[in-house]
Amino acid sequence: MIDRLVEKIRETGAPIVVGLDPMLNYIPEHVRRKAFAEYGETLEGAAEAIWQFNKEIVDKTCDLIPAVKPQIAMYEQFGVPGITAFKRTVDYCREKGLVVIGDVKRGDIGSTSAAYAAGHLGRVQVGGRSYVPFGEDFVTVNPYLGSDGVKPFIDVCKEEKKGLFILVKTSNPSSGEFQDRKIDGRPLYELVGEKVAAWGEDCMGEEYSYIGAVVGATYPEIGKAMRKIMPKSFILVPGYGAQGGKGKDLVHFFNEDGLGAIVNSSRGIIAAYKQEKYAAFGAEAFGDASRAAVEDMTADIADALGNR
Amino acid sequence: MIDRLVEKIRETGAPIVVGLDPMLNYIPEHVRRKAFAEYGETLEGAAEAIWQFNKEIVDKTCDLIPAVKPQIAMYEQFGVPGITAFKRTVDYCREKGLVVIGDVKRGDIGSTSAAYAAGHLGRVQVGGRSYVPFGEDFVTVNPYLGSDGVKPFIDVCKEEKKGLFILVKTSNPSSGEFQDRKIDGRPLYELVGEKVAAWGEDCMGEEYSYIGAVVGATYPEIGKAMRKIMPKSFILVPGYGAQGGKGKDLVHFFNEDGLGAIVNSSRGIIAAYKQEKYAAFGAEAFGDASRAAVEDMTADIADALGNR
Repeated sequence: MIDRLVEKIRETGAPIVVGLDPMLNYIPEHVRRKAFAEYGETLEGAAEAIWQFNKEIVDKTCDLIPAVKPQIAMYEQFGVPGITAFKRTVDYCREKGLVVIGDVKRGDIGSTSAAYAAGHLGRVQVGGRSYVPFGEDFVTVNPYLGSDGVKPFIDVCKEEKKGLFILVKTSNPSSGEFQDRKIDGRPLYELVGEKVAAWGEDCMGEEYSYIGAVVGATYPEIGKAMRKIMPKSFILVPGYGAQGGKGKDLVHFFNEDGLGAIVNSSRGIIAAYKQEKYAAFGAEAFGDASRAAVEDMTADIADALGNR
Repeated sequence: MIDRLVEKIRETGAPIVVGLDPMLNYIPEHVRRKAFAEYGETLEGAAEAIWQFNKEIVDKTCDLIPAVKPQIAMYEQFGVPGITAFKRTVDYCREKGLVVIGDVKRGDIGSTSAAYAAGHLGRVQVGGRSYVPFGEDFVTVNPYLGSDGVKPFIDVCKEEKKGLFILVKTSNPSSGEFQDRKIDGRPLYELVGEKVAAWGEDCMGEEYSYIGAVVGATYPEIGKAMRKIMPKSFILVPGYGAQGGKGKDLVHFFNEDGLGAIVNSSRGIIAAYKQEKYAAFGAEAFGDASRAAVEDMTADIADALGNR
């Protein structure tokens, strides 16, 4: 799957991923109204609004981008109907040829991580049959429980040719509270990054490992350091746009080959129609606003990479 | 909710929680057969088997125990039907008067943690209506992202009178890989424990805080140290039984009042009928085997507390 991600990044020229993190207040009034007319102001109505919103954005951007990253919390908050919309979104994006990164940040002790890995990246056995419960291509994983919490995910990746992005340094303001604490003179996130590199050695695609890392765009200097520590790991970079990261901050996350990083934007793309810059599209044409925002983001990153 | 947990522990004399973590191979043949006859060997069939299995165990043990802890991974691995069985289990256990600890180990950046918190402990707004999507009483939370990832959970707890158990030191063999690393001479889990105590100060029930911690039974010496660092925090203690912890290892997790800890057993209770000790019950009476295992576990812990 890492090779497919690399191939699609080369094809599109866009090392970006669209975060499908639909808050209800991002969804234009007319989409919500239609969904509520059919299902009422219910969890099912919310799930339908999310699905219709996602579908339009995917339809309008899928030829420009390699990947999407649905954040499962935004679906899970609407209970079982929300999870159904998550599954529907994953299936639809895969049909459209997109690489799907499930932003699930799961992580537990061994046997429990194995269940999450089977559910999101692999298969489960029911009697004599096997099923693909969610079927993402990559998931994000929380490393706090250590190797035996991560290994079951790696095992499933090997078997199913899937991949991981393991949390190393997150984009939020208080990420440093534990992640930056010094251990033998070096921050915890560096130790986690070294583990990611070590886990990834045994998991190589053609050029890159399918065991990647998450490092926030909001910490460009750390991106630079981590790029060296994990030369063969893809870095998923959240925090572009709404969280404050810009194209020029991102160049150090990439290798000289222009690869090795994939930059996420969620609100900046999916709620583009709400920004002054794209307001002319109007709420009805929110998908076209998202398309324009994808083009601008791709150009911003290409410029920054061209000028380094 | 912490006051209700304390009250129920006093009522039952059992500071224990039954982990509803149903692997399909724990479920007796006759239960699976019946579910598959109705729904086929499908995800729905697996979910039905899980639900029927849980229901019997809950019916046979609910008068003896204060709380249950469904591990969501074991449901999530069966996709949307699995999540439906999780929700059904949560609802049923609450109907039976049990405190429900959702073992979800979620944790993300602020706005995303807020969505998880709303989904599992709070309410979501859809147009003019509000819904309780999953409705657990407590959830487990992963602290790796720092305060701003945890605070949204605390905010919902304050509003809804719910509670948290934050991962401090987990029960698995490689938990030390990051959690034990020394920062200014002290292990990371101690810093996390201090944060738990600090977050909890502002969240007091009558005697205990509703911001608790997870510390594995497999590390009794650490339990002793953490008990001092977090005197007002309840400690959820996984790892009893199948993972190797015994009653006498657990005394240091408790305060002198006999409170302050709640010990989880999953496989040891729900798959008791598979152990030699309870084999005489037979697979048909698996619920009675679980009841006997609960009685034995309660006695083991009471003995240990009595003899300290």
